[in-house]
Amino acid sequence: MPQPELLEFFDAPTETPFLIEHVNEEFTSVCPKTGHPDFGTITLRYVPGAVCVELKSLKLYCQSFRNEGIFYEAVTNRIRDDLSEAMSPKWLQIITDWKGRGGIRSRIIASYGDVPTEWRRG
Amino acid sequence: MPQPELLEFFDAPTETPFLIEHVNEEFTSVCPKTGHPDFGTITLRYVPGAVCVELKSLKLYCQSFRNEGIFYEAVTNRIRDDLSEAMSPKWLQIITDWKGRGGIRSRIIASYGDVPTEWRRG
Amino acid sequence: MPQPELLEFFDAPTETPFLIEHVNEEFTSVCPKTGHPDFGTITLRYVPGAVCVELKSLKLYCQSFRNEGIFYEAVTNRIRDDLSEAMSPKWLQIITDWKGRGGIRSRIIASYGDVPTEWRRG
Amino acid sequence: MPQPELLEFFDAPTETPFLIEHVNEEFTSVCPKTGHPDFGTITLRYVPGAVCVELKSLKLYCQSFRNEGIFYEAVTNRIRDDLSEAMSPKWLQIITDWKGRGGIRSRIIASYGDVPTEWRRG
Amino acid sequence: MPQPELLEFFDAPTETPFLIEHVNEEFTSVCPKTGHPDFGTITLRYVPGAVCVELKSLKLYCQSFRNEGIFYEAVTNRIRDDLSEAMSPKWLQIITDWKGRGGIRSRIIASYGDVPTEWRRG
Amino acid sequence: MPQPELLEFFDAPTETPFLIEHVNEEFTSVCPKTGHPDFGTITLRYVPGAVCVELKSLKLYCQSFRNEGIFYEAVTNRIRDDLSEAMSPKWLQIITDWKGRGGIRSRIIASYGDVPTEWRRG
Amino acid sequence: MPQPELLEFFDAPTETPFLIEHVNEEFTSVCPKTGHPDFGTITLRYVPGAVCVELKSLKLYCQSFRNEGIFYEAVTNRIRDDLSEAMSPKWLQIITDWKGRGGIRSRIIASYGDVPTEWRRG
Amino acid sequence: MPQPELLEFFDAPTETPFLIEHVNEEFTSVCPKTGHPDFGTITLRYVPGAVCVELKSLKLYCQSFRNEGIFYEAVTNRIRDDLSEAMSPKWLQIITDWKGRGGIRSRIIASYGDVPTEWRRG
Amino acid sequence: MPQPELLEFFDAPTETPFLIEHVNEEFTSVCPKTGHPDFGTITLRYVPGAVCVELKSLKLYCQSFRNEGIFYEAVTNRIRDDLSEAMSPKWLQIITDWKGRGGIRSRIIASYGDVPTEWRRG
Amino acid sequence: MPQPELLEFFDAPTETPFLIEHVNEEFTSVCPKTGHPDFGTITLRYVPGAVCVELKSLKLYCQSFRNEGIFYEAVTNRIRDDLSEAMSPKWLQIITDWKGRGGIRSRIIASYGDVPTEWRRG
Repeated sequence: MPQPELLEFFDAPTETPFLIEHVNEEFTSVCPKTGHPDFGTITLRYVPGAVCVELKSLKLYCQSFRNEGIFYEAVTNRIRDDLSEAMSPKWLQIITDWKGRGGIRSRIIASYGDVPTEWRRG
Repeated sequence: MPQPELLEFFDAPTETPFLIEHVNEEFTSVCPKTGHPDFGTITLRYVPGAVCVELKSLKLYCQSFRNEGIFYEAVTNRIRDDLSEAMSPKWLQIITDWKGRGGIRSRIIASYGDVPTEWRRG
Repeated sequence: MPQPELLEFFDAPTETPFLIEHVNEEFTSVCPKTGHPDFGTITLRYVPGAVCVELKSLKLYCQSFRNEGIFYEAVTNRIRDDLSEAMSPKWLQIITDWKGRGGIRSRIIASYGDVPTEWRRG
Repeated sequence: MPQPELLEFFDAPTETPFLIEHVNEEFTSVCPKTGHPDFGTITLRYVPGAVCVELKSLKLYCQSFRNEGIFYEAVTNRIRDDLSEAMSPKWLQIITDWKGRGGIRSRIIASYGDVPTEWRRG
Repeated sequence: MPQPELLEFFDAPTETPFLIEHVNEEFTSVCPKTGHPDFGTITLRYVPGAVCVELKSLKLYCQSFRNEGIFYEAVTNRIRDDLSEAMSPKWLQIITDWKGRGGIRSRIIASYGDVPTEWRRG
Repeated sequence: MPQPELLEFFDAPTETPFLIEHVNEEFTSVCPKTGHPDFGTITLRYVPGAVCVELKSLKLYCQSFRNEGIFYEAVTNRIRDDLSEAMSPKWLQIITDWKGRGGIRSRIIASYGDVPTEWRRG
Repeated sequence: MPQPELLEFFDAPTETPFLIEHVNEEFTSVCPKTGHPDFGTITLRYVPGAVCVELKSLKLYCQSFRNEGIFYEAVTNRIRDDLSEAMSPKWLQIITDWKGRGGIRSRIIASYGDVPTEWRRG
Repeated sequence: MPQPELLEFFDAPTETPFLIEHVNEEFTSVCPKTGHPDFGTITLRYVPGAVCVELKSLKLYCQSFRNEGIFYEAVTNRIRDDLSEAMSPKWLQIITDWKGRGGIRSRIIASYGDVPTEWRRG
Repeated sequence: MPQPELLEFFDAPTETPFLIEHVNEEFTSVCPKTGHPDFGTITLRYVPGAVCVELKSLKLYCQSFRNEGIFYEAVTNRIRDDLSEAMSPKWLQIITDWKGRGGIRSRIIASYGDVPTEWRRG
Repeated sequence: MPQPELLEFFDAPTETPFLIEHVNEEFTSVCPKTGHPDFGTITLRYVPGAVCVELKSLKLYCQSFRNEGIFYEAVTNRIRDDLSEAMSPKWLQIITDWKGRGGIRSRIIASYGDVPTEWRRG
């Protein structure tokens, strides 16, 4: 079961806005319809508010989906919600890329907040 | 014959707009002029309204073009129409990429609705 | 000699604007200065008006440059002019990419009309 | 149904052994178990005997598998048998590469005759 | 727990030796030392004896390692043993490729039997 | 310890704004939490004010992080601060790309000043 | 010594604005500090005014830097100045990409004039 | 018409065997069956005897096929024969790679003489 | 200082020979001549005798070169010697790939023992 | 003028044979026929005898060809001769790769001595 309580945070090193991207290529959950495992890549991009997410805790949080039966779309929105709630970022985006099922591969993108002006040319 | 009635849908997991992309690299139809098969990749990108398209039904719908004699341009617009009619998305885009014919490869792009503002930096 | 009269057209399948791209990687003409053959790729991108260009006729039109002595810049503008005159598209762009001569490779881009608003995020 | 009678041949241009490879990236047949289409690439490599296979007839022969229910392994051996029987090559090899099914992609290789000594360093 | 009893087989379509390769890019097991999941790609290459392994059963067999605590080297030798015992191939090779741990990525190769002479130039 | 005093500068060759990008693929520091080395790529992009940074001094400055225990986010902001303070550029951007830790790779982007209008299409 | 007098020009084939890009991957000059040769790629992009630069003369002009001791930044601005002065383009951009020195590779971009509106979506 | 009389040669700089490879990516001839142009890459590999082929003359010889109606297999054997006859190499190999026709791309390999022992590990 | 005493081993899971490859892309030492850091990739390939090297201990052993002044050639032979002495493999090979210095990149390969016959086709 | 007297050597760190490869991507000389510069990559592979070549001296030796008018074939054999004479390696191979001239790119390979048996599987 997804465990947002695993997430840990540390103080952002500066109040000046900056962009952070973490890419986890080792994500797996279970298709609730077929029971077969799904494999994907989770990309988290955000502009921190007061805190940044600690890397190892992010990894453990992602691992907590391992035996969860959950659709692509729900995984993506769930991670967006858990992370934006826990760390109140200025902006946050979750991109999930899923390996093919029946010849079809998928990408889901969910966002929180507006891209700050200074990142529009990032 | 294209069979939009094969398409199935499920409720979108959230009302907050998010982006979904499905890429089907295993599409084939038949050239109505020469009778030779055409091979292509179909990319569907959309921001769901009330519903999302179910993956296996999308695959079966794509397979229903297999022995249909239909031009590239018509395939693209047909899929755009079938999907936008059946699920009333906030935005939808169909991109088809076709392997070469006589040394020429092609891409067709058809859209429905405006890209929501929050995706302009997606 | 370039023969625009080889071009054939068919009715666009819809009045809703959509984008078409054809890439011909097998183009050759002759350098008017040295007499040596030039090899390039011709990319045609357009939003159709009333008609679309038929693929085989586009191939034959491109082949009609085979023994023509003509500079890169003139090839590009000539194709832009021939195609935009013959099919009155809403927008059209010709991109030519040329293999190296004396260690220098080149790209020329010529356009007709404005990119329709709906394609600015294509 | 596979139709080897579609295959046509022309006289090899020389008696000196040489190697020919044709790669058809547009092959499709049907899985006899699930009824879903399979998509693959067929590679034919051979040292001709008296005759070479004509390209367009090879394409039509490959198209004759389009609606045939047949396993990967059987496709590969069938093509090996049809071609080696029809043209008695000095050596022939069929390599089939199949897009993923359930996250597994496959390659099958079947041969006829010994590689002639002069090609061992090819 | 690895379940070789999930494996199913079908009769080889010919007695003439030929080569089969299946690549499963969606493999995961658990590191017995750290408890963290490992992610890898399993490649099976073999020359069949009397039978071939059925693809879906191979997938299910691979999935049975999902929550097993087992080292890279043991996974590779275990699959080699399970498959060679169950189907008595003329030759079999298991290649496992593992994503990085602490900046180190790994590949393990285990074989059964000798490569038949006709495949030495495969 | 990071030593900004190693940085040397030379006069910009022109007052007309232009863009400079230096990419250092050989950066290493130490994780303050685990004591293990981190490996990354540092990209510096800037529009010079009165001075440009001298390449060899930039290399030595980067080497001064070699045995420093410091987080990704702090490295990025520290370099942004050291360089923008020392050379008062019109615009400056630091992009750091870090090899995977526990299956997660990261990128951090920090900027100083606004992108000048003439570079918005760069 | 850079010799802009080597540059030759021909009349633009049309008054309608279009874009030209030449990429010279065979550029070398000498580092004025160390005396070692520098190797780079020079990209010239421009919208012609009345004239276009002739390719062979552009090559000879680039070769005239071969034994010149000159910094990256100065090469880039010098070519921008020589070419914009000699042919009064509507817009011109010089991008230089330099192979690594001490583990650091560099790119310099210098422009002349504003990008014409019609190219903003090019 | 192929013109081997265009070929020029110069004395090999040493009697010690060495290997030379020239790759011409700009080859075109005409299909004798359809009249459409064929596009290919010609690779010449050889161990010289007394002479080496001069590069510009090789280019002109290749250009002499431009309007010749000739099959892939015949082009390859013709070049092998013309070059081996004209320069009596110790070993020579012609590899031709042809862009796709009807979805099928081809490679033909023709050789002259045995690979000298010292090159077997080249 | 290189610390082979950091290396730990575990029993090989089988007496049947198999091949193990570990690739460490995060290696750094110091050039004894210039004092500048060197960055490289270390590849270890071996057929185990009684024991296999434990991954985390291999990583720590590699890290012990971090501040050692040592040439490429000596690093490679040192690792070959330390590992072959400590674990008496049936065969072992060290490949080191070094990023460029002054425009020159390098690879060094050192081996221990003969490749077992069964791996000659690996 | 090529200056082999620039080459410096150091004692091989072991008498056990091992393989060294240096790749210099920044080589330029002058075509003696046209006076235009040639650009290439020089690869040196050798098994040392008593000595190894020092990297910086190898770079300076390569730079001594910068303004020399010399053919591809002669460059390759000259470097083979200079290096094998100066350091009596157990085996040595020079591979030169040249950027295209008139659409033709070239590779020349010259060797000295036999590949030692232990490297035949390298």
